[in-house]
Amino acid sequence: MFADRYIESVIKTKSHLCVGLDPDLKKYPTYILKQAEEEYGRTPEGAASAILRFNKVIIDLIYDKVPAIKPQLAYYEKYDSFGLDAFWKTVEYAQSKGMIVIADAKRGDIGDTSNAYAETFFKTLDKESWESKLSVDAVTVNPYLGSDGLNPFIKLGAEKNKGTIILVKTSNLSSGEIQDNVIEGKNQTVSELVCDYINNNIKQVGKYGYSDIAAVIGATYPEELKKFRTILSKSLFLVPGLGYQGGSIEDIKYAFDENGLGAILTSSRAINYAYKDINSSEEEVKIAILNKVIEDNNAINTMLEKENKIIW
Amino acid sequence: MFADRYIESVIKTKSHLCVGLDPDLKKYPTYILKQAEEEYGRTPEGAASAILRFNKVIIDLIYDKVPAIKPQLAYYEKYDSFGLDAFWKTVEYAQSKGMIVIADAKRGDIGDTSNAYAETFFKTLDKESWESKLSVDAVTVNPYLGSDGLNPFIKLGAEKNKGTIILVKTSNLSSGEIQDNVIEGKNQTVSELVCDYINNNIKQVGKYGYSDIAAVIGATYPEELKKFRTILSKSLFLVPGLGYQGGSIEDIKYAFDENGLGAILTSSRAINYAYKDINSSEEEVKIAILNKVIEDNNAINTMLEKENKIIW
Repeated sequence: MFADRYIESVIKTKSHLCVGLDPDLKKYPTYILKQAEEEYGRTPEGAASAILRFNKVIIDLIYDKVPAIKPQLAYYEKYDSFGLDAFWKTVEYAQSKGMIVIADAKRGDIGDTSNAYAETFFKTLDKESWESKLSVDAVTVNPYLGSDGLNPFIKLGAEKNKGTIILVKTSNLSSGEIQDNVIEGKNQTVSELVCDYINNNIKQVGKYGYSDIAAVIGATYPEELKKFRTILSKSLFLVPGLGYQGGSIEDIKYAFDENGLGAILTSSRAINYAYKDINSSEEEVKIAILNKVIEDNNAINTMLEKENKIIW
Repeated sequence: MFADRYIESVIKTKSHLCVGLDPDLKKYPTYILKQAEEEYGRTPEGAASAILRFNKVIIDLIYDKVPAIKPQLAYYEKYDSFGLDAFWKTVEYAQSKGMIVIADAKRGDIGDTSNAYAETFFKTLDKESWESKLSVDAVTVNPYLGSDGLNPFIKLGAEKNKGTIILVKTSNLSSGEIQDNVIEGKNQTVSELVCDYINNNIKQVGKYGYSDIAAVIGATYPEELKKFRTILSKSLFLVPGLGYQGGSIEDIKYAFDENGLGAILTSSRAINYAYKDINSSEEEVKIAILNKVIEDNNAINTMLEKENKIIW
């Protein structure tokens, strides 16, 4: 199961941190861009080459210090097929280093099309198919189309031991515009309706009590985190918003269960671009990223120690 | 503007039909698959080669008979970067033939990431950027994350004359699970809330009275079509569900305004796989697709004639 694989990776690395890989070339180190530009010019191919190279730098620094990476598809698709190639090569590289990979894709469509998306990220491995063997460990999905847009991910996920991470309460400022509305006659918000779907579809939990149907709950709404931790007792929470988006270490303590499990804490830009200056040397860039990851791990683990919630 | 370009293409082709291109290799003609397999084997590269070839066959048949195509990203991404390359080459080929291209991507994310998706589909054409010049004419987006997930598409769309097509009421069976709920204290459904966002963000309409912010409203819910046509008087409707999904020609008449404009009627599989047998000859395949497009155009236009709503 995805949930077990994730938690075992947490215990092995003694970390709850999932590093988002959101390539933004405007913030990239000059030494990386310069080489890509010399080789390919300012082209999508050049961008993809810089992205893959920098992702490998980051993965080499963090693979034994955090359980997972979370590449965000938008930043790869921006460079067309070259970008998507860099995405899949990043997935392959991270998995070869033993990391869990969560594709932040937020896909969702009508049934047949959601099925094609599920196959994109999980793959059928059907001998008759034309697909590659590249797959991620989990993918984020959007519930706006209702159950027939979600079911294909959960169904294929159950077959392939992959995680489906459903948007419940997102980290952004305007997340409440749709998600926080209370439904007439139901005494439930839209987000809570999505929780019902999740709970009703959990058929199996792993050895730590968690299912492969997880939820996205933003770190920027600590009160919500507390509420949803109670409602969704069998779901891992992917918690974006730490760092750059303003969520604090104190805020995210509610994402954990009584054993110190259940939270996939993501931080992207604050780690990817931890160096002060894009003209920093290769060595300075690496030290800044590494220090930021160690600092975040320490801050999270210190908070959990205070709460008596260290699992390892 | 996208809206004007689309309507001019409707008038030029005397058609309201937008042909979805949803490659499903299991339904592909044998003669297409055989050649791809001989050249590349059953690989993602082979799949992409078959997809691009068959898409070109379809585009060559329809480019002067319908205004637009709507490739659905899931079916391309399934074959990783090769598939995405086939997607963009399809976009380029259709545009070279004068067609409008709508990317059915249903993207939506937090602000910065939605901005990267907007740039993926619309491109900045910034001289300093590493991106290609490939762009679509419009893209479908998902409103679950609220306004800061939608604004980047609308903002870049306004700059680049591109359309943003927001999911309001989707065509699938379970669409009502989230979308039809009435919000407490607002006397509005979730879908209607999305309509408010659309209306509040329309700053410009083109010469036919339509803005570049459009809405997805499924053909499978005719009563909803009628209601939303009144609420969203300045928005084109992308209406999926004709044909394979069960929407009838009669059902979709409510998508049109009093002048016979306003509806982008999509049909995908019923056209793509109009031939009876995958072993049909090249000629039989082409005739079946062509006949289905002509038949659909005639059915739509006959319905509009009865209503006195022919614009050309």
